Amino acid sequence: MAQTAYEAPLGLMQAALAQAARTTGALELDGYEEALELAPSVLENAARFAGEVLSPLNRVGDRQPARCEAQGVVTSPGFPAAYQRFWRDGWVAMGAPEDRGGQGLPTLLTSVATEMWAGANLAFAMCPELASGAMTALREYGTAELMAHYEQRVTSGEWATTMCLTEPQAGSDLSTIRTRAEPDGAAWRLFGRKIYISWGDHDLTDNIVHFVLARTPDAPPGLKGISLFLVPKLMPQADGTPVRNDVRALSVEHKMGIRGSPTCVMAFGDSSGARGWLIGPLHDGLGCMFTIMNHLRLGVGLHSLGLAERALQLARGHARERLQGRNAAGAQRPIIEHADVRRMLLQMKSLTQAARCLAYTTAATLDVAQLATDPQFSAAAARRADLLTPVVKAWCSEVGVEVASLGVQVHGGMGFIDDAEISQVYRDARIGPIFEGTNYIQAQDLLGRKVLRDRGATLRALLDDMQAAARGLPEQASEPLHRLRAELIRGCDALRTASDHIVAAAGGEPELIGAVAWHFLQWLGVLAGGWQLALAAQALVAKAVGAQAVADSVKHAQADAGTARAIIDCAVFYSAHVLPRIHTHAAIVTRGAAPVSAASVADL
Amino acid sequence: MAQTAYEAPLGLMQAALAQAARTTGALELDGYEEALELAPSVLENAARFAGEVLSPLNRVGDRQPARCEAQGVVTSPGFPAAYQRFWRDGWVAMGAPEDRGGQGLPTLLTSVATEMWAGANLAFAMCPELASGAMTALREYGTAELMAHYEQRVTSGEWATTMCLTEPQAGSDLSTIRTRAEPDGAAWRLFGRKIYISWGDHDLTDNIVHFVLARTPDAPPGLKGISLFLVPKLMPQADGTPVRNDVRALSVEHKMGIRGSPTCVMAFGDSSGARGWLIGPLHDGLGCMFTIMNHLRLGVGLHSLGLAERALQLARGHARERLQGRNAAGAQRPIIEHADVRRMLLQMKSLTQAARCLAYTTAATLDVAQLATDPQFSAAAARRADLLTPVVKAWCSEVGVEVASLGVQVHGGMGFIDDAEISQVYRDARIGPIFEGTNYIQAQDLLGRKVLRDRGATLRALLDDMQAAARGLPEQASEPLHRLRAELIRGCDALRTASDHIVAAAGGEPELIGAVAWHFLQWLGVLAGGWQLALAAQALVAKAVGAQAVADSVKHAQADAGTARAIIDCAVFYSAHVLPRIHTHAAIVTRGAAPVSAASVADL
Repeated sequence: MAQTAYEAPLGLMQAALAQAARTTGALELDGYEEALELAPSVLENAARFAGEVLSPLNRVGDRQPARCEAQGVVTSPGFPAAYQRFWRDGWVAMGAPEDRGGQGLPTLLTSVATEMWAGANLAFAMCPELASGAMTALREYGTAELMAHYEQRVTSGEWATTMCLTEPQAGSDLSTIRTRAEPDGAAWRLFGRKIYISWGDHDLTDNIVHFVLARTPDAPPGLKGISLFLVPKLMPQADGTPVRNDVRALSVEHKMGIRGSPTCVMAFGDSSGARGWLIGPLHDGLGCMFTIMNHLRLGVGLHSLGLAERALQLARGHARERLQGRNAAGAQRPIIEHADVRRMLLQMKSLTQAARCLAYTTAATLDVAQLATDPQFSAAAARRADLLTPVVKAWCSEVGVEVASLGVQVHGGMGFIDDAEISQVYRDARIGPIFEGTNYIQAQDLLGRKVLRDRGATLRALLDDMQAAARGLPEQASEPLHRLRAELIRGCDALRTASDHIVAAAGGEPELIGAVAWHFLQWLGVLAGGWQLALAAQALVAKAVGAQAVADSVKHAQADAGTARAIIDCAVFYSAHVLPRIHTHAAIVTRGAAPVSAASVADL
Repeated sequence: MAQTAYEAPLGLMQAALAQAARTTGALELDGYEEALELAPSVLENAARFAGEVLSPLNRVGDRQPARCEAQGVVTSPGFPAAYQRFWRDGWVAMGAPEDRGGQGLPTLLTSVATEMWAGANLAFAMCPELASGAMTALREYGTAELMAHYEQRVTSGEWATTMCLTEPQAGSDLSTIRTRAEPDGAAWRLFGRKIYISWGDHDLTDNIVHFVLARTPDAPPGLKGISLFLVPKLMPQADGTPVRNDVRALSVEHKMGIRGSPTCVMAFGDSSGARGWLIGPLHDGLGCMFTIMNHLRLGVGLHSLGLAERALQLARGHARERLQGRNAAGAQRPIIEHADVRRMLLQMKSLTQAARCLAYTTAATLDVAQLATDPQFSAAAARRADLLTPVVKAWCSEVGVEVASLGVQVHGGMGFIDDAEISQVYRDARIGPIFEGTNYIQAQDLLGRKVLRDRGATLRALLDDMQAAARGLPEQASEPLHRLRAELIRGCDALRTASDHIVAAAGGEPELIGAVAWHFLQWLGVLAGGWQLALAAQALVAKAVGAQAVADSVKHAQADAGTARAIIDCAVFYSAHVLPRIHTHAAIVTRGAAPVSAASVADL
């Protein structure tokens, strides 16, 4: 079966990047435009690395997964060498400040690269993804000694990092963590088991720096008694030579997908205790851990997006080559000529581009929150990024599963055979809705925290912006985009009404959030995807936005005519085939908790 | 991880079976009620076989798939012995006439058993599924000599059968089949390669009878030139001793799921030609093959349903055991107490029961079509079964994928680990929308043939029945079921309008069917599922249907109070969380072909 390497869709990525920078106000930040001028060359280099180095290893990781040997975890052939090139070429540190050896590139730009790594090889891409969060945590909470020893190597990616949270009895609920840390002079000794540790052990780097949640002897019970510790695989001795710490991988899980990524059961302190150093305040480990994890939810969205793009590429390539049926002249037709196949490809592409624009917009909003000098502007961006992050994680990951499944369907029987990379994409994509907080946890965060805490104010501001964008589309019924305009405006009104009702009712209905949050998030996700495609189409419809906006769009997006046509097609298709989902989500959310709460649990 | 064997949901199955028999009129058929009186004991025995023999082999098939050795395909450990018990216990022949060694049980009853086999072990269940179709084809088209040699062994399942259609260049489009058959005395010699042959070779039976599509030298091109041949693995010689035919498996595919089922590349005639015997008229092989395949589409629906039920069992079991979070008193809660987990389980259960009722109803309708003595009654049932069969195949298989995915989600991270059977169910379920005609092929059959050919008459009659059933539900706004009533009535009206429009417009819009058929079928599927749950709920709401119907329902369904509550819960939940999908499908279908046809193929 002819299969091609991952090819980053640079035109669509640049268009989404330019739109995110422009519409969030990030472009007005000091130095941002200059940073974005590097985008074309940075992204071309990243695209080359993704296509030439990472993509060919994707099937290898699936077929020859990492395995646990006596000396530790041995990764798939080619992974260690690729990783060495990856960090030495500066890809891990691209977002780190220049005074820390990085390139100081904005989150918007590193996000595009993250999409590429995941599209080419998600299992590999998961290894370096903690570096920037770990660096931030070290700078914020690390002692001078820890900084001196770890910061530069963690930032560059020379040493890898892990996040050790989950235990057999403690998954979504971390309050029951049992791993214990006992004081040992200036440091600690840790004892316990952790499960589902991504890249918990491997041979990609000389050392691995674990960030571990544990409970100290005096700690209060529950979430308020958990502390965060840095536990290196190799510790420095007084003379500088490294010595093995008492931490090791006991086994590697056999998983449905992302098989090239070793998911480990980790043992801390099987003999004398794993030496660890406290990070941040005692008993406030969760706060510190969230600093590390903050970007991960955006990362899952970007991963899912990368897989969706990869599924589209594989399906489109297959649909152009595979002959079935005949045209009027009796010649065999490639299946892309069949309307239903084009329907599936358009569904894949419009969902992928909508998710891309939304994820990049969230990245640019994080840049504004971090870099804007006007405190009001910065705070508003922070609130919006807070609101959008769970949507990006949970909506884009559902999109990833859906688009991968459509990719299998376009392949027909071949899609079910392991030889076809699309079957791997389908299996890989299924982790998205599960990890870094299940999609329900995201939905609960969105509705139960982000919406309720300001009684819907941040959401209303977003909906106002979405409706303003819709009003920029043509109103005449003869224009293909007028339905996107009308449906978006109406859809935002309906969501605003539903949200007002939930804000008012949640206090009195204990199961309301639980019963409707998942659909509420997906509803907002579908609308937000439509908003993003409305912005994209708007920028290309000259009459509607005036010459300057078009000039800007062309300048930053460098959208060629084909990219422009593809974006308009996506917007029109999305309004016809995806946006109507809002009616389903709206009907479900509006019904409230009753259909769930009234059902008999015993008879389930 | 504690995992339990498949447990057939006898209460819900009996309720669905009784409903199907009652509402289709099958119960009025001669001898049908007597046959159904056997149901409880037949189904209990089948449930025991599924749970005790087939279910424990399900993981074995996945972990140790069938493999191709020099002497042929060797199946997973335990499969051959289980199959010997399976056919000797009479399960293959249960639907065959009593004068042919069967038990003469109606399709309705064998369908319930099919659901069980698939729920317990889909890979295994695929082996015997061709037997009844092959027997029908032999009786209809076979010569006396072929009958004498094959009929009894094929009917009993002592010898297995296969269906050999697909070739590398000929998948959904069979017109390009190249396997050729050359005359050789009273028989033929076949030469060619076939791919994706399920159970193409194996060690479960002494002999395998292949039904092979091939082209004879004088055949016209295209579909009208294809003939059907019976090609045995072992041929009888004049003295009765068997000799190997020139047919063998070249390889077994490595697949995403149903790994215990060997999917073979088959070589016919690598040396002197595979000896074959013509079945049915020359050049009309497709017609004969469709006789064999007729039940397979219903079978895929039943398979998907079986997997959905299995996913529900695994998820429910996990949700009752897994502790996360705490209740108000500080005790750890099983996750089934969380509203979102119950939402997922209710979604799984209501979709599964709706799909079950619809599949069984289609089976009972086939019984009416075959057995009714009134020709009008029989013909009307045949038309309805024709209409419903693609819906059962394509809607239930999408339901299977969705419910399996929800099952993974309920498991959280554990659902992604191969050790968890739910991950196998998820992979197994993905074949449903692909094989026996992709779901688009089914949708095209529904809309492009079944609806267009009588200008919507059969569909309108179905919609009338659906609305009549809805009207049997309570109308008062205080009743939880009144929304199901109202939404079903309105939804059928909208589908009728859309169908009228398509019937009128399809001739002038070449891509209309292609662009909307998939959503049209799913729309009808969601409504039909609601219709079935309305019938189920109606029978349990005494006030609405009168004492006699309730008595009948109790007599045939033997619904205990728990089953009755579960059915009402499913109906209420379905009306709130599943039925609203009709708004999305309606909006998409109503938009017609434009969003697909107008898009640029070059820029996709």
